Amino acid sequence: MRTRERRRGRPAVARPERRSLRYRSLANPFAPIEPLSADEVEHLHLSALELLRRHGIRVLLPEAREILRTAGASVDEATELVRFEPELVLRATATAPSSFELIGRSPERTVTLGGRHLATVPVSSPPAVSDLDGGKRVGNLADFRDLVRLTQHFDVLHVTGPCVEPQDVDLPFRHLCMGLIDFAAAGQLSVVTPFTLAGAMAPVTLAGALTLQHAEALAGITLTQSVRPGAPVVYGAFTSNVDMKSGAPAFGTPEYFKAALASGQLARHVGLPYRSSAPNASNAVDSQAMYETMMSLFGAVLGGCNLLIHAAGWLEGGLTASKEKFVLDVEVLQMLAETFEPLVVDDEEIGLDAIGETPPGGHFFGGEHTLQRYRTAFYEPLVSDWSNFGQWTEAGSRDATQRANEVWKRVLSEFEPPPLDDAVAAELQEFVARRTAEGGAPPES
Amino acid sequence: MRTRERRRGRPAVARPERRSLRYRSLANPFAPIEPLSADEVEHLHLSALELLRRHGIRVLLPEAREILRTAGASVDEATELVRFEPELVLRATATAPSSFELIGRSPERTVTLGGRHLATVPVSSPPAVSDLDGGKRVGNLADFRDLVRLTQHFDVLHVTGPCVEPQDVDLPFRHLCMGLIDFAAAGQLSVVTPFTLAGAMAPVTLAGALTLQHAEALAGITLTQSVRPGAPVVYGAFTSNVDMKSGAPAFGTPEYFKAALASGQLARHVGLPYRSSAPNASNAVDSQAMYETMMSLFGAVLGGCNLLIHAAGWLEGGLTASKEKFVLDVEVLQMLAETFEPLVVDDEEIGLDAIGETPPGGHFFGGEHTLQRYRTAFYEPLVSDWSNFGQWTEAGSRDATQRANEVWKRVLSEFEPPPLDDAVAAELQEFVARRTAEGGAPPES
Repeated sequence: MRTRERRRGRPAVARPERRSLRYRSLANPFAPIEPLSADEVEHLHLSALELLRRHGIRVLLPEAREILRTAGASVDEATELVRFEPELVLRATATAPSSFELIGRSPERTVTLGGRHLATVPVSSPPAVSDLDGGKRVGNLADFRDLVRLTQHFDVLHVTGPCVEPQDVDLPFRHLCMGLIDFAAAGQLSVVTPFTLAGAMAPVTLAGALTLQHAEALAGITLTQSVRPGAPVVYGAFTSNVDMKSGAPAFGTPEYFKAALASGQLARHVGLPYRSSAPNASNAVDSQAMYETMMSLFGAVLGGCNLLIHAAGWLEGGLTASKEKFVLDVEVLQMLAETFEPLVVDDEEIGLDAIGETPPGGHFFGGEHTLQRYRTAFYEPLVSDWSNFGQWTEAGSRDATQRANEVWKRVLSEFEPPPLDDAVAAELQEFVARRTAEGGAPPES
Repeated sequence: MRTRERRRGRPAVARPERRSLRYRSLANPFAPIEPLSADEVEHLHLSALELLRRHGIRVLLPEAREILRTAGASVDEATELVRFEPELVLRATATAPSSFELIGRSPERTVTLGGRHLATVPVSSPPAVSDLDGGKRVGNLADFRDLVRLTQHFDVLHVTGPCVEPQDVDLPFRHLCMGLIDFAAAGQLSVVTPFTLAGAMAPVTLAGALTLQHAEALAGITLTQSVRPGAPVVYGAFTSNVDMKSGAPAFGTPEYFKAALASGQLARHVGLPYRSSAPNASNAVDSQAMYETMMSLFGAVLGGCNLLIHAAGWLEGGLTASKEKFVLDVEVLQMLAETFEPLVVDDEEIGLDAIGETPPGGHFFGGEHTLQRYRTAFYEPLVSDWSNFGQWTEAGSRDATQRANEVWKRVLSEFEPPPLDDAVAAELQEFVARRTAEGGAPPES
C-alpha cells in the first residue's frame, strides 16, 4: 500500500472548519496526451527549420534585423526577409531556460513557469467590455479596474493582464510600448505566440499550420536569445481554424484541441515552457461559450500548458471582455484545480468500518466518518446551482449567467485592495504623474 | 518519418466534396489518465472484497439469493444479507468477457464494447421532458418518439435508450420488467451500475465511495456469472457527491471527474468494459449545464469509458430530458469524435511549398493546397455560431440554446424512418398488439 502525501491544509488530526483557498500554485498531475509520435514531432520541427532556412521570415524592425544579422542570420534588406541556418535556431533553443520564476509583488504570488506548473492569466486586451447590465460597449478605465480587482480577488488567477483596453485613456498614456528586444535585454519574460489560423494566414492542414507556428515561434525565440542568451521566453501557440464558408475564426474546435495537444509536444521538443489559451467564438455567454471554452481548456491542460492566457472573461473571439464569463471561467478553473488534488487512498479514507456500520438502505449523513470531513470534503461552487427544480423556480429561475452577474458585483462591492507599502505606493504615483506630465509614451516607439 | 493511416473516407487522390459522417464506430486514441497507482487500485479492490466477505450485501430477490447460495455464497435469509468469499467474486470476474459486440438491427450499427471502443447512449428514463416551446412537463409517448428519432438521426449516438418515460402510457404496457437474471440467462448484455453518492448513500470520501461502488458492482457481476458464466456484463460507475449543505446530488463536479478516472482503473483491474455517463445538475440549458457536462464527459473519456450512457439530453440531475440539451450534447460528442481522428503529419499535409509560395502578410485562402482540402478540412458545427457580433445581432441575437431548438425541429420535420423489412415490421406490430390485448407486463414481475 502506498499512501499519498496528505492534502495541503488538511492535517490528519485538526480538521479545518472551511475548505481553504489553495489555488495559488497549481501543478498539473496529468501526463500530457501526445497525438504525435516522436518521429512526427521531429518531422514538424525539421520542416519549420527548413522553412526558416529556405524562405526565412519577414522582420519589420531594422534593429531586430541588425541583431539577427550579427547573430549569424542572412538578411535581405530589400525584402526585409531574414533567413536562419538551423544551427542558429538550435543554439537559441539551447540557451533559453526550460523553467523560471515570475516574481510576484507579494512573495506568495510568485509563480514558476515550466515543468508541471500551470499559471493562469485573465483575458488580455479586448477593445470592448460587456456585462448583463450595460451590454457590449467600448472598454473604459472603470471596467479595466473592475477586471483587475476581480483578477486580484480570485487566487486561481495568477498573473494579471491588460484585461480590456481602457479606450477613454488616450493612447500615449495607455501603455508603454515595449518590444521583444527590450524585454529580453532586461531579462524580463517574453511570450512568443504566432497567431496561425489554419485556412487563413496558415495552411489549411493542421500539420502545415503547426509547422508555420513552430517556425515563427523559433524565429522570435532566436531573437530573444540573440539579444541576451538565457533570457526567459515562453513558446506560445495559438493555432486554430477558420470557418471555410465565411473565413471567420473559430476557437475551441476539435482542430484547436488537437493543435493544443501537438503544440505542447513541440514546446517540450525545444525545451521551453508552453503557453496556451482558453478561447471561444460565441457572441453570448451561453452554452456554446462554455463548451468551446472547455474544449480549449482541456486541450491546453492535457497538452501540458504552463501559462494559460485568456483564462477568464474572453468572449466573442477575444473582442470583448465579459464580466459574467469571467466569473464562469473562474468557476471552471477552480474545478480544474480541484481535479489536480490527489485522490487519497488509505484505510482511514476508505472507512470500511463506517461502511459496515451503515445498514443496507441506510445513509452516511450522520456517521462519524462523515461528520469529521463534511465541511471540507467537496469543492463548493461559486456559481453552480444544485437546488432542485422547484427551489430554483421559486428563487426566480436564474440561469448561470445571471448568477455570475451577482457574483462579480458582490466581489467588487466587498473588494479591499491588497496591502502596499506607503513608500512604494508614493513612488508609483509619482512615476505615473511624471510620465503623464511628460506626455506619456509615444505610440510608435 | 512515420505516416499514419489516412483518414477514413479521405483517399489521397479523389477528395470528397463533403465531409462524410463517420461517427458510427469510435475508438478513443487517448491513453487513460490514471490518478491511482497500481497499489492503490489493488487496495480499493481488496477493501471491496473484504466488504463483501465481512458485511455482505442485501439481496432482495429470493431467486437471486438462491442462485448465489448455489454458487457458493453465504446467505442469511432473515436479514437477506449475502456474503461472498473473494474466490467466488474472482471466479466471476474471470469468466466475464472483456470485450463483446452489441448487434445492431442493421449490421453497420453493431458496436463493440471493450478495449478502446466508445459507444454512446442518450439520456435514459427521466420522468419529465422539456423544450423551449413547452417548458418542463411530464414525458409522453410523442416526446419519447421525438427523442428516439433524434437518436436515430445522429450517427454519433450508437445505442438507443428509454429517452423519457412516456407517462401517458399505462405502466403495464410501458416496459417489460426484466432483471439481471433473465438478461444473463439469455446471454444478453447487463450493465451493473451502483449509484454511490459520496456523503449520502456512500462514504463522504471518494476512496470510500469507490470501495462501495466496487463492492456493489462485483456482487452484481458475480450474480450474472453465477447464472451463466461468460454472460456479457459491463462494469458501471456512477459515483458523484452531494452538496453537503442541502444533500442535493451534484454532477460534473471535480469529485465526479476524479471518480470517473479512478472507476476506469477499477473496471480494467477486473477486466471488464467500463460504463460511465455525462450528467450535469443544472435546471436550465445554460452555461452550467455545459461546463458540468464537459467535466463529466472528459472524466469518462479520459477514464477509458466504453459505454457512455446519458450522453445526450440529460438535464436537471436526470429528472428531465431536454431536446435542446440533446442537440448541444450531440454537437459536443461530434467534436469529441473529431478529436479522435489522427493528426496526419507528412510532407503533403505540411505543404512546405505552399507556405513558401504565400508571401509574408499574405493569406492561404486561394492556394492550391487549400482548394484541394477546404471542403472537408474542418469539422462543421451543428449549433455553434461563428459569425461576428454585428451579423449575429442582425440575425436576432439567438443564443446556442435557441439555435438548438431550431435544429431538433428541423431534424424531426425531415425525419425518415430507417428501412425495415415488411415481414419484420408486421411481426413486431403483431407482438405489440398481442401483448397489449393480453394486458401487458405486470409491473411487479
